[in-house]
Amino acid sequence: MFLIRRYYSSVQRIAQIAGCNKPGDTLEVQGWVKNVRRLKNNIFLDINDGSTSEKFQLVVPRNLDTQQLTSGDVVRAVGRVQLAPNGHYELHAEDVQSIAEGHLQEGYPFSPKQQHAPEYVREHLHLRARIDYIAAQMRVRHKAQKAIHDYMDELNFVQINTPILTTNDCEGAGEVFRVQPDSEKLLKQMSRPNVPVEQSYFDQKVFLSVSGQLHLEAMSYGLGNTYTFAPAFRAENSKSPLHLAEFYMFEAEMVYMNELDTLATFMECMLKEITKRLLNNCASDLHFCQRSAKASSDLAWLQAPWKLISYDEALAIVVANRDKFKTTVSADDGFSKEQELFLVAHCGAPVFVLNWPTQQKPFYMRVSRSDPQRVHALDLLMPSVGELCGGSLRESDAELLSKHPQLPKDLGWYVDLRKYGGLPTGGFGMGFERYLQLVTGVKNIRDVIPYPRYPHNCRM
Amino acid sequence: MFLIRRYYSSVQRIAQIAGCNKPGDTLEVQGWVKNVRRLKNNIFLDINDGSTSEKFQLVVPRNLDTQQLTSGDVVRAVGRVQLAPNGHYELHAEDVQSIAEGHLQEGYPFSPKQQHAPEYVREHLHLRARIDYIAAQMRVRHKAQKAIHDYMDELNFVQINTPILTTNDCEGAGEVFRVQPDSEKLLKQMSRPNVPVEQSYFDQKVFLSVSGQLHLEAMSYGLGNTYTFAPAFRAENSKSPLHLAEFYMFEAEMVYMNELDTLATFMECMLKEITKRLLNNCASDLHFCQRSAKASSDLAWLQAPWKLISYDEALAIVVANRDKFKTTVSADDGFSKEQELFLVAHCGAPVFVLNWPTQQKPFYMRVSRSDPQRVHALDLLMPSVGELCGGSLRESDAELLSKHPQLPKDLGWYVDLRKYGGLPTGGFGMGFERYLQLVTGVKNIRDVIPYPRYPHNCRM
Repeated sequence: MFLIRRYYSSVQRIAQIAGCNKPGDTLEVQGWVKNVRRLKNNIFLDINDGSTSEKFQLVVPRNLDTQQLTSGDVVRAVGRVQLAPNGHYELHAEDVQSIAEGHLQEGYPFSPKQQHAPEYVREHLHLRARIDYIAAQMRVRHKAQKAIHDYMDELNFVQINTPILTTNDCEGAGEVFRVQPDSEKLLKQMSRPNVPVEQSYFDQKVFLSVSGQLHLEAMSYGLGNTYTFAPAFRAENSKSPLHLAEFYMFEAEMVYMNELDTLATFMECMLKEITKRLLNNCASDLHFCQRSAKASSDLAWLQAPWKLISYDEALAIVVANRDKFKTTVSADDGFSKEQELFLVAHCGAPVFVLNWPTQQKPFYMRVSRSDPQRVHALDLLMPSVGELCGGSLRESDAELLSKHPQLPKDLGWYVDLRKYGGLPTGGFGMGFERYLQLVTGVKNIRDVIPYPRYPHNCRM
Repeated sequence: MFLIRRYYSSVQRIAQIAGCNKPGDTLEVQGWVKNVRRLKNNIFLDINDGSTSEKFQLVVPRNLDTQQLTSGDVVRAVGRVQLAPNGHYELHAEDVQSIAEGHLQEGYPFSPKQQHAPEYVREHLHLRARIDYIAAQMRVRHKAQKAIHDYMDELNFVQINTPILTTNDCEGAGEVFRVQPDSEKLLKQMSRPNVPVEQSYFDQKVFLSVSGQLHLEAMSYGLGNTYTFAPAFRAENSKSPLHLAEFYMFEAEMVYMNELDTLATFMECMLKEITKRLLNNCASDLHFCQRSAKASSDLAWLQAPWKLISYDEALAIVVANRDKFKTTVSADDGFSKEQELFLVAHCGAPVFVLNWPTQQKPFYMRVSRSDPQRVHALDLLMPSVGELCGGSLRESDAELLSKHPQLPKDLGWYVDLRKYGGLPTGGFGMGFERYLQLVTGVKNIRDVIPYPRYPHNCRM
């Protein structure tokens, strides 16, 4: 690490200045000029280096060189840190160099002093990281992923890179993207008898993964507890602020999992713990995102114990309040987002809804032995986003599974997992972007992912 | 964490037993029976719970219940740990329960006592995690990823989830997969004037990413140093044991990067450090993989200082030894794998080859101001795998970049990044599976990834 530390130590990241220095220390910083104020003897530059959403001020002597500095320029400055009257550190620069010119007047779409609507900012996706609230969001996203990886590793889960290309579509929903080589020539070269030419690369239709769960289960049968954190894809024509064509899924699979209560306990502990770590590791960025989104920062659900209710209880609550909803109440289709949020408010805390009707849920869920009309499934409903996670015990009986009317015909391998040692497993999945919306309060999912992909939109 | 720890504490993972217990401690373990030996009074079961490649022995009293236990069964056992005569811990079980039966005699493809060829094991991909060397490989893969994330986070890099779906194909090699919704109905619903119907979801052709570099660069212009660890895709018709259609790329992008030497130093420090952490965190699995692959375990490159030579020097060495190669030597095409390995052996250490001919490298590399026939690019050549990483300084001059004859026509946004503050950046990419092959010695890349995808093969 010696050379690395030396390489890095010559320049100090702004986020680290307060923690690592005392007034009078000599420092070198680099960054983008965000704002310039010229006074009689000095120029005051707000600079940003991408490490923090807080402003950092350079106090620069006014001379021929520094006179030209303007917003968007990239500068390097050496000087001494001092405490400013407002209690923040600032750098009294002795030497300031321009590394690159900003040229913002030549068509740059964002005005340094103006707030732009998220829709407008999204139009200029390649420059979006230069907007403070997007940069803060990306750092929060990074730290949230890190917290998940750390937590799961501490509990000895093995991360599995479940495949993106797959021949099965887990949920059977049909809303999948299909993949083939772009080159017609390659497809022809690789063609084989009885295989349609557009399928000749893999000899069959190949899709983008909608979930890593089934692949994860196969790995858990050799490795014990596993998880995946990977892109997933849905070809839906949805303009919803909660849906993307490409998003990230966190999924965990646990062996010897016999009870939904145990699964719910794991989920509650995990989500509380990673959120606490996020608050510890990047409180300033998190609050910056919340303020930018005009969202509450209290995250009251972190303190409250979460509730468990059965699907039947949840349905009874919704039915009893049906006149409060714009959406219709149905015993066949699950709950609308409006109804989910009502249940959360009614319970006064996040709530796990347990034991769902068998006909509403996929083939792989464990059927109740005492009531075959129910499966051991749970949904976790949270404030502001509604459903955050879905999970279940898995059907571990090969015989029952193989007779399930919805079992896709090419999933013999999935039945095989149970045939040879059908131990009880269970797990859950969480849309990572929804989690980020939950903690940052950002309304549109397109603003919590670096490069959002949605209908009619795949920039860059 | 209280409930979680309590939930987990009732069952001990085998990998943790030696570190957390003393002889006489009462423990509960769960796992798959790998081997059974019946003696007069006791049955000896080797069990595995997926946490380690080392065997763990249960000593079980022979009675009516335990008499039935056989390979493949899943058991739970409670008893006291004792030191066996061979110095390893074993469990003297007082209570053993069968959780699930193995049924291995009913068509299970692997024989517990037999070594199977990797090609045969790959035919049964869904059961492959039950093979010890694959499970060990997956744990090494997990720990290697974890080491990368930890290291980059410590150095304040921000992880960016670069997109999988993209409208540009970074290298311009043309070997890309194309993506569209599988549903004809959806495509028709979404169709717009002047857009071919198969492109109607995104209004243009969309590909699977071959590299996250360009997207990473856009983020670095707001966030500073960034990295990505994401799937990448190549539609090549290659049967090589070094290539996959879907693989993982680690890519890092650094701001204020002015010198290839600095970049090389970073790469050397990083690769040595993550490998040392891997040796500290999972030495036993790593050595198990090396032994299974009949590979050397000395990793001599960890100790040696790595070399830097120019492309011209490298070419001179190869030309002077041209009669030793089966492959032709060419000043236009770079080096063959055979020639790369020769250069590593000749230098007696991993070697960075610097300053490549401009015509051999992509448009985004920084052209030498003193010699426009050369770009500031480097390849890192390693023992056994040849090229492990490629990197470069990036062209930071918007004017030069926009005139580059190979600049793809839809990359105006990439030029824009430089137009508004063209600071010097640089970075590199590494195929993660090649790194795993390097450290574990595994010959075929298909055995270091959970679900390999390659021509005519996309199982599950």
